[in-house]
Amino acid sequence: MEGKEEDVRLGANKFSERQPLGTSAQTESKDYKEPPPAPLFEPGELSSWSFYRAGIAEFIATFLFLYISVLTVMGVVKSPTKCGTVGIQGIAWAFGGMIFALVYCTAGISGGHINPAVTFGLLLARKLSLTRAVFYMVMQCLGAICGAGVVKGFMGDAQYTTLGGGANSVAHGYTKGSGLGAEIVGTFVLVYTVFSATDAKRSARDSHVPILAPLPIGFAVFLVHLATIPITGTGINPARSLGAAIIYNKGHAWDDHWIFWVGPFIGAALAAMYHVIVIRAIPFKSRS
Amino acid sequence: MEGKEEDVRLGANKFSERQPLGTSAQTESKDYKEPPPAPLFEPGELSSWSFYRAGIAEFIATFLFLYISVLTVMGVVKSPTKCGTVGIQGIAWAFGGMIFALVYCTAGISGGHINPAVTFGLLLARKLSLTRAVFYMVMQCLGAICGAGVVKGFMGDAQYTTLGGGANSVAHGYTKGSGLGAEIVGTFVLVYTVFSATDAKRSARDSHVPILAPLPIGFAVFLVHLATIPITGTGINPARSLGAAIIYNKGHAWDDHWIFWVGPFIGAALAAMYHVIVIRAIPFKSRS
Amino acid sequence: MEGKEEDVRLGANKFSERQPLGTSAQTESKDYKEPPPAPLFEPGELSSWSFYRAGIAEFIATFLFLYISVLTVMGVVKSPTKCGTVGIQGIAWAFGGMIFALVYCTAGISGGHINPAVTFGLLLARKLSLTRAVFYMVMQCLGAICGAGVVKGFMGDAQYTTLGGGANSVAHGYTKGSGLGAEIVGTFVLVYTVFSATDAKRSARDSHVPILAPLPIGFAVFLVHLATIPITGTGINPARSLGAAIIYNKGHAWDDHWIFWVGPFIGAALAAMYHVIVIRAIPFKSRS
Amino acid sequence: MEGKEEDVRLGANKFSERQPLGTSAQTESKDYKEPPPAPLFEPGELSSWSFYRAGIAEFIATFLFLYISVLTVMGVVKSPTKCGTVGIQGIAWAFGGMIFALVYCTAGISGGHINPAVTFGLLLARKLSLTRAVFYMVMQCLGAICGAGVVKGFMGDAQYTTLGGGANSVAHGYTKGSGLGAEIVGTFVLVYTVFSATDAKRSARDSHVPILAPLPIGFAVFLVHLATIPITGTGINPARSLGAAIIYNKGHAWDDHWIFWVGPFIGAALAAMYHVIVIRAIPFKSRS
Repeated sequence: MEGKEEDVRLGANKFSERQPLGTSAQTESKDYKEPPPAPLFEPGELSSWSFYRAGIAEFIATFLFLYISVLTVMGVVKSPTKCGTVGIQGIAWAFGGMIFALVYCTAGISGGHINPAVTFGLLLARKLSLTRAVFYMVMQCLGAICGAGVVKGFMGDAQYTTLGGGANSVAHGYTKGSGLGAEIVGTFVLVYTVFSATDAKRSARDSHVPILAPLPIGFAVFLVHLATIPITGTGINPARSLGAAIIYNKGHAWDDHWIFWVGPFIGAALAAMYHVIVIRAIPFKSRS
Repeated sequence: MEGKEEDVRLGANKFSERQPLGTSAQTESKDYKEPPPAPLFEPGELSSWSFYRAGIAEFIATFLFLYISVLTVMGVVKSPTKCGTVGIQGIAWAFGGMIFALVYCTAGISGGHINPAVTFGLLLARKLSLTRAVFYMVMQCLGAICGAGVVKGFMGDAQYTTLGGGANSVAHGYTKGSGLGAEIVGTFVLVYTVFSATDAKRSARDSHVPILAPLPIGFAVFLVHLATIPITGTGINPARSLGAAIIYNKGHAWDDHWIFWVGPFIGAALAAMYHVIVIRAIPFKSRS
Repeated sequence: MEGKEEDVRLGANKFSERQPLGTSAQTESKDYKEPPPAPLFEPGELSSWSFYRAGIAEFIATFLFLYISVLTVMGVVKSPTKCGTVGIQGIAWAFGGMIFALVYCTAGISGGHINPAVTFGLLLARKLSLTRAVFYMVMQCLGAICGAGVVKGFMGDAQYTTLGGGANSVAHGYTKGSGLGAEIVGTFVLVYTVFSATDAKRSARDSHVPILAPLPIGFAVFLVHLATIPITGTGINPARSLGAAIIYNKGHAWDDHWIFWVGPFIGAALAAMYHVIVIRAIPFKSRS
Repeated sequence: MEGKEEDVRLGANKFSERQPLGTSAQTESKDYKEPPPAPLFEPGELSSWSFYRAGIAEFIATFLFLYISVLTVMGVVKSPTKCGTVGIQGIAWAFGGMIFALVYCTAGISGGHINPAVTFGLLLARKLSLTRAVFYMVMQCLGAICGAGVVKGFMGDAQYTTLGGGANSVAHGYTKGSGLGAEIVGTFVLVYTVFSATDAKRSARDSHVPILAPLPIGFAVFLVHLATIPITGTGINPARSLGAAIIYNKGHAWDDHWIFWVGPFIGAALAAMYHVIVIRAIPFKSRS
């Protein structure tokens, strides 16, 4: 996508073609420098409007995410015959599609996390400061609570409670271990996609690739929902689980609630480790 | 995507990497200047062929939008068993998919509004003149009426009336307040996506982002339909609601009709305010 | 996407921002010249390998299109309960998705028509020679016949005939006029999208837009299927209708067959006229 | 997408416009040189970290692919009423969507094969060395076995066996010949899309096209599943079939197992031949 650099890249492509598509990862491209890790505390942020604006953007995005997705769940659960609704697949589209649209809309403002597990994974990879990470997580949880609350307001208390409020829990027939495992692997899929889609080294190398970034991220959420709605209702986002649990506020929504924090955080940590240790590491001198 | 500018942007990226993905919003990029607000009346437009062509494009696009979407609704409603149809999810795809394709096709001709609420939101943000906004809204409503009319012609009067004509109303079990709220938040989602996807400042900054713009806009429409078809049938587009109501023309389609003008216009106004006040504002000097 | 030109375009954008998004259509960009219309007969083509290769690519693409789509139809029709299949929506995805993938794959070889109505519309707009158009249409029809034939081979003759063979006809409850109208408007949607997505003038102007071109074209096919499968089974592609009719070869598949040639050709002609007369015309001097 | 080259390309476009969209394939673009075929054995690879990292990436990607897709299959099969699940269409989305997301994520690391048939096709076209191809296939099969194994762990042995374990076999009512044919044509669709989407010659020519590459590849997988799930459950990926068969390990999963190796390899070979012989060949001097 650049002027002069492009000639270089085109030349490099001729060589990299001998490798399978895309294996030119080791080629040290001149226009890329590893950014320094973010400091844990960056006092300057606290006096920057962009810091607070980013928090507001995370709040609004998580609010809209819960509103649309929980309302879709309510519509499906309410109907006696699922064929007259958008179906379970429609629920998966609601979660995944909202993440696609919202990541697209907020990527330039806050980075488009909309999920404490994503924020946690990026924090471990030192992509943002601890201050900012905590601020984002708080705003995400507040947004999620408000989003689920508005759905309750539209549905009425009685109906909302009857329909389960979109709260996560491990389904009958599965152990808590399976539920935790499903949350771990599911969040791994999401955070692995986030890292792959936004890798700065990769951006410098294959400048065309990140164009689509919000789309595979949204698809990752959609796909994990296809697979694990029958097991846990699919959390992979502690803010989403917390918001629904607080507004629903019945005992059995709280019994398994720890799974929807522990699972996503473990999954995000594994994805961050995989990215840092395997994908980005250069343990011995590359020959290609 | 540019020659010389790219070098600057690549350099800037190295720094912005220290912030979470995309928080570089405050960086003042040299190649961007805030465009002046559009005048309320721009007499020159009225003698420009591109003005009338844009109106024709809005008419044709809204015509095709109503034709495909209402015909899809009729096909689903007509069948006694929803499993033998494209289902409610298919209806949501018809609305959202058409907006994706039509925004893509008309973006270069008229801006691809196809919705008076979108035109209203952009008018509030001073992105187009009042003359043009009124002209667009009239053409959109005329197109919508014709589109629904052609569906009635293909289905036959009796069948069209029996099947409800795709007209919007608040579903049994929901209050008018819930219906109004659902329209407000739903239109907020759409117009917020439109503003985010087409932000000129953002285009100058992350030049790759707007490439996908019609896709998240179409997805926003799809997602709002997934969530609110059970509540109001989903308007979030006064032209769509008006066209269906005029061609259907039964009392109960008119009873709630105000909701599908007031709701979308409030939602669009809130989205315009959010964009102008929060996202674009620079209330105190940024440090980052 | 260009070096020097980009500066010009960025400057122009500052101004065009005062117009609604994208209304800068009249701006005469210096790097664009209307290509001359294709000659009716271009003898040089006939001694060019790229001409025959393009025909082979159209054959293979239409073959794969019919194979996947008709096989999907068979799978849905065969099952007594539609819930155990991909459903009518899955059929619409099969048709639209294949057009997306195949236009993407063959755009660089043959232009990716895969549909005599698209070839006809582009011929009317003088985008290709008559020789090439006729050659493409013959190859498309042959490919379609082979694709449907392979499905029949896999299903067995008896089963294929029982299940209707994916042949198009006007459904019970609709007049032949409605069926013809549905084919006309449906093909208009498709060919209008093709023209909008591949407009050379537009490419020069908004160089980012055509990147997604195969996606809205595929979506247009998907959306028309959502709307008109209940009416005609959706043709909008005479090769698809001919291939299925020849392999099925029962009287009632032939009775309505003219509709699936006349309708698509009228729709394609209207879309070509709309594009040439309204969208591309500059009847009086633009002021903006 | 380049600076100077763009001017040349724009000029060329004016001419190519006289041909149907995209037929400019024969134009010898100066910035493209056919890469030399990959050597069968490239000893240098074995001492390169990027070689092992690519293998790990293939392992992880195939692991996640099987995990999500087989878990989705289990959820659908488990439910007595398919309407209460994501349905067969949801299964098709799980397979195709995962391939989209994973090709996107691993394209820059390993080339994103995730399928021995894709690796085999690219080997035949001499896009990678035999050493690398064998290493990839082994890692893909190991990943697939682990992915299916984790699903079995989550579901419990008894339930997993009852539900069929997502293993491929030819459905009742179809001959083994039809099953083999469906695998051949299905894999042809996939590998043909892979070749078209990643063609280096094409990249040099239409530099915008490969941006979307993972999307049509994922759609190809989705579409083949829509069509052939009723016939074979859809393999088109020997690692996926092997992983499910080993973990399920019942006699009838092994009876047809050869079909899911022979079919995909024949389909991939045909697609490689089509690409090399028809699409890339220049048998006589082009005039255009």
